[in-house]
Amino acid sequence: MRNFDQFSITEAVLERVANAPDARTREISEALVRHLHNFIREVRPTQAEWEKGVAFLTDTGHMCTGTRQEFILLSDTLGVSMLVDAINHDHQTAVTESTVLGPFYVDGPPEVANGTDISGHLEGEPMFVSGSVATLDGTPLANAIVDVWHSDVDGYYDVQHEDDGLVARARLRTDDQGRFAFWSIKPAAYPIPHDGPVGKMLEAQGRHPWRPAHVHFMIEAPGHEKLVTHVFVAGDTYLDSDAVFGVKDSLIRDFIAHAPGTAPDGRAMDTPWCALTYDFKLNPVSAAASQAA
Amino acid sequence: MRNFDQFSITEAVLERVANAPDARTREISEALVRHLHNFIREVRPTQAEWEKGVAFLTDTGHMCTGTRQEFILLSDTLGVSMLVDAINHDHQTAVTESTVLGPFYVDGPPEVANGTDISGHLEGEPMFVSGSVATLDGTPLANAIVDVWHSDVDGYYDVQHEDDGLVARARLRTDDQGRFAFWSIKPAAYPIPHDGPVGKMLEAQGRHPWRPAHVHFMIEAPGHEKLVTHVFVAGDTYLDSDAVFGVKDSLIRDFIAHAPGTAPDGRAMDTPWCALTYDFKLNPVSAAASQAA
Repeated sequence: MRNFDQFSITEAVLERVANAPDARTREISEALVRHLHNFIREVRPTQAEWEKGVAFLTDTGHMCTGTRQEFILLSDTLGVSMLVDAINHDHQTAVTESTVLGPFYVDGPPEVANGTDISGHLEGEPMFVSGSVATLDGTPLANAIVDVWHSDVDGYYDVQHEDDGLVARARLRTDDQGRFAFWSIKPAAYPIPHDGPVGKMLEAQGRHPWRPAHVHFMIEAPGHEKLVTHVFVAGDTYLDSDAVFGVKDSLIRDFIAHAPGTAPDGRAMDTPWCALTYDFKLNPVSAAASQAA
Repeated sequence: MRNFDQFSITEAVLERVANAPDARTREISEALVRHLHNFIREVRPTQAEWEKGVAFLTDTGHMCTGTRQEFILLSDTLGVSMLVDAINHDHQTAVTESTVLGPFYVDGPPEVANGTDISGHLEGEPMFVSGSVATLDGTPLANAIVDVWHSDVDGYYDVQHEDDGLVARARLRTDDQGRFAFWSIKPAAYPIPHDGPVGKMLEAQGRHPWRPAHVHFMIEAPGHEKLVTHVFVAGDTYLDSDAVFGVKDSLIRDFIAHAPGTAPDGRAMDTPWCALTYDFKLNPVSAAASQAA
């Protein structure tokens, strides 16, 4: 095992990882080596370009903190997140479509009762969100966990501000009829955080960093696959050029404008407000996956 | 640009990066997207495996400091560094072969006179290293920069110890006949740092982390390509299983054992010592590269 040229080096590394005790680790390692080496042989990086690549990955790692996940941004902007999503959600059914998780989910968000206004100190157009969670055949799923999070009117998430606490983010549970509802403010389109290495990459690639306005949902119910998705605001400028390729037609809804008056839950509104309704359908966990779990 | 499946997502990302203003950035971006997506489609990662991949890259980034470069270790152990080396050094001539830089080079090492003992406080078998730097046809290159660095008898580099200062590391310059010489101690085989993510990867792949004993050289002279290489100790246990695939036969030398007595530079040795001699030949900078520079 010496004196490798640009072809025999690949065989040598493959031979080395062939000893991985776990079959899946071996499979992933072998595929990684083959595709990575093919990439290198195609682009023939100079030593200086290799150094730039190492520096880019290092900077990307250093940018990651408890509230900033630059490698997820990288995966999102290179289309890898939506590709993994597509592989794992081959929809032939009425199930609600999924999209990227994004870098702003926070584990264990504050749990609130249905009807709560989760906008905290944020200003903006009041938004009433209501909907339901059901099985594929429409049977309501009671007590399902509905996590929601979205940006403010400037396009920032709570975790992007220091010491502001968690706002526009909550955990709800569906009622006996599988329904949920909350108040917040209407989110805005926003650029993904682009003051780091991924922002530099987008600029070098001649791309804008914008995402169309949306509300994130993560929904869990026993016996069903976890659903990670958004609902997008119809008419947004960036629906056809989402920086992370996450838009699907089935996830776009009118956020219906209403004049001041009485909202569906009886709240008296003295300003204009908007309403979003979405009915989610979850995929049952497959028999195979049930046995594996 | 919506509603992508696992094939159309690749076309969508390629379309997006096609706007990169710089042709080389466009070329690298397009190749990266194609190969990365092919890798993902082949291994079909679950969402949990994707999360593990993101966590691995994040941990690798967080492991990088001013004196620890985990992404270089990753590149080295996946054979990428030697592949890039092979692509950039297609040797058809008498030029000395190159190998990996490794993660322990320090910019601007302490400059010392020829004949200096650079071992500092380190204990070990004294080693006298001498050699020359010349053009391909054997013409001596005077005043060439010769950077050297190597491990101690426990297999550690100076920068892996806190507050010990730089030892077993120096910058020399060749004399009028292109010659250089220094004293140090004989280096040992060592495991690459394996207390981080790359160590976990090697373990999962069923691989050992060892490198055969060697002395690093980086040599620069005007009008010539910079040479980055090692000289390996003949007979080392790990010559055929170097964790980073860096061994070439032409870079292996006997580190010749000597009984106590007088060394070639007149130093009186009262313990056994060893001697390494290597004559380096540099590649002229190509006409094309000269014009580009």
